[in-house]
Amino acid sequence: MMLRLPFIALTITCTALFAQDTRTNWETLFREIPASDRIGTYVRRLAARPHHVGSAYGKENTEWLVSTFKQWGLDSHIETFHVLFPTPKGRSVELIGPKKYRALMQEAAFSVDPTSGQRTEQLPTYHAYSIDGDVTAPLVYVNYGIPEDYEQLERFGISVKGCIVIARYGASWRGIKPKLAAEKGAVGCLIYSDPKEDGYYNGDVFPEGPWRPKDGVQRGSVMDMPLYPGDPLTPGVGATQGAKRLDVKEAKTITQIPVLPLSYADAQPLLSSLTGTVAPEGWRGALPITYKIGPGPAKVRMIIKSNWDIKPVNNVIVTIPGSVFPDEWIIRGNHHDAWVNGAQDPVSGAAAEMEELRAYSELLKKGWKPKRTIVYCLWDGEEEGLLGSTEWAEAHADELKQKAVLYINSDSNGRGFLGISGSHSLENFINAVARDIEDPETKLSAWKRSQLRRIAGARSIESRQEARNREDLRIGALGSGSDYTVFVDHLGIASLDMGYGGEDGGGIYHSIYDDVYWYTHFADTDFTYGRTLAQTAGTAVLRIDDANILPFQFTNFAETVRLYVDELKRLLSGMQEQFKERNLQIAEGLFSATDDPKEPHVPPKAKEIPPHLNFAPLDNAVDELAGSAKQYAGALKKVSPSRSIPTESLRQINQKLIQSERLLINPDGLRDRPWFRNLIYAPGFYTGYGVKTIPGVREAIEQERWKEAEGEIARVAAALTAHAAMIASIAADLEKTAR
Amino acid sequence: MMLRLPFIALTITCTALFAQDTRTNWETLFREIPASDRIGTYVRRLAARPHHVGSAYGKENTEWLVSTFKQWGLDSHIETFHVLFPTPKGRSVELIGPKKYRALMQEAAFSVDPTSGQRTEQLPTYHAYSIDGDVTAPLVYVNYGIPEDYEQLERFGISVKGCIVIARYGASWRGIKPKLAAEKGAVGCLIYSDPKEDGYYNGDVFPEGPWRPKDGVQRGSVMDMPLYPGDPLTPGVGATQGAKRLDVKEAKTITQIPVLPLSYADAQPLLSSLTGTVAPEGWRGALPITYKIGPGPAKVRMIIKSNWDIKPVNNVIVTIPGSVFPDEWIIRGNHHDAWVNGAQDPVSGAAAEMEELRAYSELLKKGWKPKRTIVYCLWDGEEEGLLGSTEWAEAHADELKQKAVLYINSDSNGRGFLGISGSHSLENFINAVARDIEDPETKLSAWKRSQLRRIAGARSIESRQEARNREDLRIGALGSGSDYTVFVDHLGIASLDMGYGGEDGGGIYHSIYDDVYWYTHFADTDFTYGRTLAQTAGTAVLRIDDANILPFQFTNFAETVRLYVDELKRLLSGMQEQFKERNLQIAEGLFSATDDPKEPHVPPKAKEIPPHLNFAPLDNAVDELAGSAKQYAGALKKVSPSRSIPTESLRQINQKLIQSERLLINPDGLRDRPWFRNLIYAPGFYTGYGVKTIPGVREAIEQERWKEAEGEIARVAAALTAHAAMIASIAADLEKTAR
Repeated sequence: MMLRLPFIALTITCTALFAQDTRTNWETLFREIPASDRIGTYVRRLAARPHHVGSAYGKENTEWLVSTFKQWGLDSHIETFHVLFPTPKGRSVELIGPKKYRALMQEAAFSVDPTSGQRTEQLPTYHAYSIDGDVTAPLVYVNYGIPEDYEQLERFGISVKGCIVIARYGASWRGIKPKLAAEKGAVGCLIYSDPKEDGYYNGDVFPEGPWRPKDGVQRGSVMDMPLYPGDPLTPGVGATQGAKRLDVKEAKTITQIPVLPLSYADAQPLLSSLTGTVAPEGWRGALPITYKIGPGPAKVRMIIKSNWDIKPVNNVIVTIPGSVFPDEWIIRGNHHDAWVNGAQDPVSGAAAEMEELRAYSELLKKGWKPKRTIVYCLWDGEEEGLLGSTEWAEAHADELKQKAVLYINSDSNGRGFLGISGSHSLENFINAVARDIEDPETKLSAWKRSQLRRIAGARSIESRQEARNREDLRIGALGSGSDYTVFVDHLGIASLDMGYGGEDGGGIYHSIYDDVYWYTHFADTDFTYGRTLAQTAGTAVLRIDDANILPFQFTNFAETVRLYVDELKRLLSGMQEQFKERNLQIAEGLFSATDDPKEPHVPPKAKEIPPHLNFAPLDNAVDELAGSAKQYAGALKKVSPSRSIPTESLRQINQKLIQSERLLINPDGLRDRPWFRNLIYAPGFYTGYGVKTIPGVREAIEQERWKEAEGEIARVAAALTAHAAMIASIAADLEKTAR
Repeated sequence: MMLRLPFIALTITCTALFAQDTRTNWETLFREIPASDRIGTYVRRLAARPHHVGSAYGKENTEWLVSTFKQWGLDSHIETFHVLFPTPKGRSVELIGPKKYRALMQEAAFSVDPTSGQRTEQLPTYHAYSIDGDVTAPLVYVNYGIPEDYEQLERFGISVKGCIVIARYGASWRGIKPKLAAEKGAVGCLIYSDPKEDGYYNGDVFPEGPWRPKDGVQRGSVMDMPLYPGDPLTPGVGATQGAKRLDVKEAKTITQIPVLPLSYADAQPLLSSLTGTVAPEGWRGALPITYKIGPGPAKVRMIIKSNWDIKPVNNVIVTIPGSVFPDEWIIRGNHHDAWVNGAQDPVSGAAAEMEELRAYSELLKKGWKPKRTIVYCLWDGEEEGLLGSTEWAEAHADELKQKAVLYINSDSNGRGFLGISGSHSLENFINAVARDIEDPETKLSAWKRSQLRRIAGARSIESRQEARNREDLRIGALGSGSDYTVFVDHLGIASLDMGYGGEDGGGIYHSIYDDVYWYTHFADTDFTYGRTLAQTAGTAVLRIDDANILPFQFTNFAETVRLYVDELKRLLSGMQEQFKERNLQIAEGLFSATDDPKEPHVPPKAKEIPPHLNFAPLDNAVDELAGSAKQYAGALKKVSPSRSIPTESLRQINQKLIQSERLLINPDGLRDRPWFRNLIYAPGFYTGYGVKTIPGVREAIEQERWKEAEGEIARVAAALTAHAAMIASIAADLEKTAR
């Protein structure tokens, strides 16, 4: 289904290149409008009851959102997709020997917290997209359940084959844990919140403090999102009513083994029944037990059975048509669905987004005419697997490829420091925005406060110097974990993800305690930073909307890619040195000589030393990119600010700028996961949310596939070269225009 | 009282310089003799009942030792001193608000462990040399109670003035904690064993495993040993019957505030009653609570009253007279007293030492004639403050200054890797010894196993390369914490401290559980490493005894001192950079900008940037030392192994070698602690056991006393120059001899 955009007659006009004065005025006006108390009102409304995918209140919320936006005079509608969404009909975890214990699997309601008792509407504690199962097996503790933990287990001579693993949350996205456990032969997977990461170790627990209480559980999706996010039954296409669907059995993103989450109160009896090897220091949490690995003698039975229903996913879409470049879309989104009440995740961000819309409606009344089409989205089904955004973007893929200038995402928000990740062609742009936002606590700019924090937190003299002296603060690269994924990774649309945080801790993530009581007692209690987020994202939208030439900048991108290439080289040389050293240590008998015969280890095996790889194609491509970027920056400077340029020329230049980002996409995608097509940014196959930049090369090196690494180098180099050529071509266009 | 040495008529003889064959024979014979089962028998005898200073069984042990040695045909006697030794007559710790809790302060007896129930003979849990007191005050948690913890408290705006501090064991010697707390204005100090360092966090607790059970307490001395060890009433002189004594009130090494140790079971109710600032990450232990700092609302009353008695300290001294150089003494020691049963600390080491003596008695029967006088000491009162060794060495100071070649110490022993600290003029010598000792678990040499462990544990490529390629493994510098202190720090006698360990963990240190049951279940259970320690120390004794020219070597020492000087320079430049950076951060407003207004910190104050110091005198002295060391090594090479040298010439050269080490002593001692006179090695004023090399300069820099630092540089340079001149002079003597 196409986006319903009012038709705008395109007339040929001329536009002054930098509409500085106009911009400042509308922006300044805009930033005055967002109000904390209104954001508070939205949060209280949206988070009043549980509102996960398919819930009654989720539906009510979307209807309320649409009617509110319509009241504000904005074009708004619900766009629905139909996705596979399993909900549990049976769950249990039981220690059946040597002692008996039946896991409670129920979060406690507290009388001070009025929404914690809405039990009939709350989703139970479970992991969405776990396969059904009923397994009984010895238990084994695998720490975070990430690849290096299994390497450690190998040194201990411990296999998880035929076992149920218990892993703690942390160090990777949760879905990686069952994926890796299944690869290693485990038959079930439990994931619990250790108080070290998420409980009393960090501070008072809820409701006295913000941290996870003993029965609190982190729900979450365990869908194999690094393969593809969105509806498991409709990879690559929108899950419309009539879409062709896979059979549930064919869906590769459903787990291979059953998975369930546990509270630390439920985990403790299980963990304390393990014997055998004492867990190494880095594996120990904050429970008052000796952490041991097992396997066994603890034997566990776990059962999970789900209703495998198709449920509606309701996105709310708001469109403000562009007056000059209606076919250039500025897209902004935040999800509205939650695991339970979700006052923080995602309502704190969604409410800010709402307030941006209210501010636009005020500006529109005052005569503001956006040049471009502004599309605001409130996504459904983010929690279960980025369902709403993925299906929407897949459904509108062709149009988005043509028209999307960028996508600006937010999610949970809190007090503190502005955090930004995104496409590095927008790094310079978003830095400029951050310089114009006032931090409410310090009255410094959000940029300055971030900079000072980086100086304070720098781990080396070099990074401190960079924080002090580089014109722009570096933004992080996007991995996954929120709704930007389909835009940046699947469609090659430049994206930004932003939010404030870093001051309030807490342990209510994906629990019934992420609610209004918690948020108004322990987070951005007066919604001051909600207002600041609205100011930040809205300023970005207004500024990019108002720009005649879209504010992409490529010197930062080129410099960043060079850093990534350097990282790849260091990764390889590090592995060479490490393997060489380990082989030498094996040869000199170090492992047996330093081993304690009472606690023997399995020595590692000697490995072939990684070959040298030909990085020249990448180096050449980066040089070209840097050259083009410089050329583009030079051309831009030559264009006089006061000069009028025919709108059609601008349109053509901007279209090329938009398309330049698409060149980072390769239609074949990444190895074993063609849905992921961005050659520069991707979530890691074994990290989940964590980004792997230049993923084809990086993961080939990490997984010791040397031939493939060289092939990937060539593929990335070709994309960068094409990208560089496009930028050079835009620069030439600009020079012509400037003459 | 003089050492009773049989008179040996000195006749002028000639000796072949390197008696290689002889040496090898006696050494090889020697190493066959020590027997693990005999060591086990000694351990069972000595650790059968509590045997602290002044105890009935301590007395019995000394008498049994003397009679055993006499049975072996060795000259042995008890040498007694009379020292101040407080034992508690009243102790209590009570939480009086907001909740009530009375600390148990009693370690549990376990039926499987036959000696744990010997309650009538056990010293209660307390800290020896705590001042008497009865104080009631708010409680405040100070982490380890070391200087940087108080800096952190300052940032939090928290003062301990008028409070009782509770610190956990670790990161410094325990006596530092009350010393620093008193300096900061606290009125009492509790020290507890956190399960993180010493309990279930590390493994199963006793009696199921080796780790400290919940009621286990670490006793210990809190005497201000960095000021001076030994009897508090007789600093610098032997505490003989008639010695002039200070009044107890004048004794500066007794604490300023009352101190008591607690188990973690007793600490938990106190710690969990604290509110206020959540302790930073590095401050959190393994109790299942949110660690908070306070002060209060927890209010604590603590009482400690002692009997301040004079008690006998009974050293056992064994003398084997030298046949060629009777006035050159090789001294070897290990203490025999324990806090309770002390199977590990110190009996595991003392029993090995006994077995060395039995082996000598065997060799003597076979015709072995030691060239030098061998003095074996089994010290009393080490635990309370190195009482036995300090008083003995102070009493015999004049003779020791003339005659002591070196002092070889051991203490607790266990399974694993050979650890050596000591004077670097002996580094090359002791490395050679370690190469000839077989590690019982791997059948490699103890040296090789140590080397491989260093390679495995190296934290940088440089240190790994050094571990692989340097001819000698580096030995650590001596701080304090065992009986070598008076020898190296007060008298300038080259010393070595050695022991095996690193494989068995445990948490019975200074508790009733350090007993035969624990040792035979969880440590060197069959005393194999006891035998290895006897072989190692005995080989060292035999080899140095047999040497014609004492095996001092100065190139390693010179290189090591150069490293220390480099460290001092880096310490200063690091402080300069750090202060400069902090001042800049203060100026740019970083601290207020990054602070959370809901949890405000006190920003640090700007500090004057440290001046550059004149290190030239030290650099010059080290150059001279390196030159002399090289010259000495060259001269030694020229001496033909087969050449006979008049014994008197050897005696003169050796006397100079002995005296060369004394030149590292300055009679005025260190600032505020004249008892410590070694300018190269000392325990830190604020670390206790931890060594500070070139302490005068290092502590002056650390404590920002710049004038003093330059004065100390000159003083150390002068000592090193004199030392270098002495070595050059010995080299010249050698060259003459070689001609």
